[in-house]
Amino acid sequence: MSIPAHTSTAPPFTGMPLDRATEERKDPARMAELLADPRARTVLAGSEGVVVAGGDGSPTLLRVPVPAEGIPGAILLGLEDGAPMFAGDLEEFSAGERAALPADGAGRRISLREAGTLLSHGEAGLAAYATALLNWHRRHRFCANCGAGTAIAEAGYSRHCPRCGASHFPRTDPCVIMTVEHEGRLLMGRRAGWPAGRLSVLAGFVSPGESIEEAVVREVYEESGIVAHDPAFISSQPWPFPASLMLGFHAEADGGEPESRDRELAEVRWFSLDAVRDGLNGRNPELLLPGGVSIARLLIARWVALRGS
Amino acid sequence: MSIPAHTSTAPPFTGMPLDRATEERKDPARMAELLADPRARTVLAGSEGVVVAGGDGSPTLLRVPVPAEGIPGAILLGLEDGAPMFAGDLEEFSAGERAALPADGAGRRISLREAGTLLSHGEAGLAAYATALLNWHRRHRFCANCGAGTAIAEAGYSRHCPRCGASHFPRTDPCVIMTVEHEGRLLMGRRAGWPAGRLSVLAGFVSPGESIEEAVVREVYEESGIVAHDPAFISSQPWPFPASLMLGFHAEADGGEPESRDRELAEVRWFSLDAVRDGLNGRNPELLLPGGVSIARLLIARWVALRGS
Repeated sequence: MSIPAHTSTAPPFTGMPLDRATEERKDPARMAELLADPRARTVLAGSEGVVVAGGDGSPTLLRVPVPAEGIPGAILLGLEDGAPMFAGDLEEFSAGERAALPADGAGRRISLREAGTLLSHGEAGLAAYATALLNWHRRHRFCANCGAGTAIAEAGYSRHCPRCGASHFPRTDPCVIMTVEHEGRLLMGRRAGWPAGRLSVLAGFVSPGESIEEAVVREVYEESGIVAHDPAFISSQPWPFPASLMLGFHAEADGGEPESRDRELAEVRWFSLDAVRDGLNGRNPELLLPGGVSIARLLIARWVALRGS
Repeated sequence: MSIPAHTSTAPPFTGMPLDRATEERKDPARMAELLADPRARTVLAGSEGVVVAGGDGSPTLLRVPVPAEGIPGAILLGLEDGAPMFAGDLEEFSAGERAALPADGAGRRISLREAGTLLSHGEAGLAAYATALLNWHRRHRFCANCGAGTAIAEAGYSRHCPRCGASHFPRTDPCVIMTVEHEGRLLMGRRAGWPAGRLSVLAGFVSPGESIEEAVVREVYEESGIVAHDPAFISSQPWPFPASLMLGFHAEADGGEPESRDRELAEVRWFSLDAVRDGLNGRNPELLLPGGVSIARLLIARWVALRGS
């Protein structure tokens, strides 16, 4: 099955091309077939990145044959043109095992951020998906309800507690990120710890008991004291660092002098259209904007394109 | 502080009116002050509902004085006109303690769904918020990373593991829900287990490694075989049953005969505008639509209003 992409300007890390095999992964007999399928392949990811092959030209994720003895955990990503694809956590391999991996000529590790810019749209989406799923398993081996060790179920789409019977599902943390505008100027901030000149639009996690529109207004207020209104959804992006889902918005604001209230930002202020455009084009050495892998840059570029014409 | 509501037609369970005191909850000295504040109150919620006072006319959440010995866990919801408000988990009270609760005349338990229709917008939002936070604590007393018991931190906005040092934050599961249309007809389904005639729009959890727009397309395909496109975000709603965040969309579809692929739906088909309008008005005994507390009904009513004019 092939689902058409929802838009031609989809952010990096979307566009994962596999059939997730949502039903087949619940069937143990079918899973045994998939594990034994000679076409089965495994892609490798860890907390420090993914393994790619193909040199500098057009790298792809390295696909290794599933070892005859099976792979640790057997986490099924889905089906690629009918062939099963699994995810292997590099953190579970010993140094010797890593060295022995069939490297297909040019196996090398790159960060997930690099994957977002070096790989094709679909391959980067696959890298994000494998990373998200493995990140969750790596940090959720125990039952949050009773503390017992849990076991992989549904070929990696859940974990089951043998003691209390609880089922646990992959966690995805929704996070709002937004361009906020007043009279043609854009609100941006610098996080504590970021170097001087590094700025981006505001962002924060959705809290319990609020809509995502309310999260936009609350986060902008907490981080800047600015009252935003009329948040309009723009686009979203999976962001597995380690488990976020970025929800991109644009909002208007009443103006005023921004001031960090929650001390998350070391600096927060309004920027003119010219300053932001120059920042995007690399012509403003005092304004280092996020790279193209993040939805932040897409939102900023969209704002400049809309306001600059 | 009072943040203006983002829209006058906000779904039930939005509109939580408290200042969340995001910064103050990180300060132990300030927390001790808040616990000792004679204006401090506690609202009570459990897995089976919330406690209200005020009879049938205009009920509000029951607010009990914080007991002198403190309350179990000390989960701060925030500040109500400067007065601290805590959340108490009814499940942690013994039967005797529950009976001894100061009932303010008319303390009685109602379900959270009832709260969504009986209480004012703000009080229902407060009920949803308290429920969401307590649901999370109740099911996450242990560290998913190492299995040790964890302790409440940030006055309830996180839990800390004393063994491995991990911090855990409240979990909110994003879920897409969507009207899907083809040639003036609406796609709806009946879940396995629902009675005959009970139908709603399709919905499902966002998976790791996908945008919410992609989740719309995937879920519609998995549940009906229908290919949706151009998903447009409409509105969102916190839905703490136990921890969801509903993300409402509208999408167009290419048509075709719907058929459940993943067996989540016992029935899925297209409905005419007239049939849906009659269902909303209670004039179609064969079409029982969701009640007003859920965003599903808002999405359906929006579709009827847009197409019926």
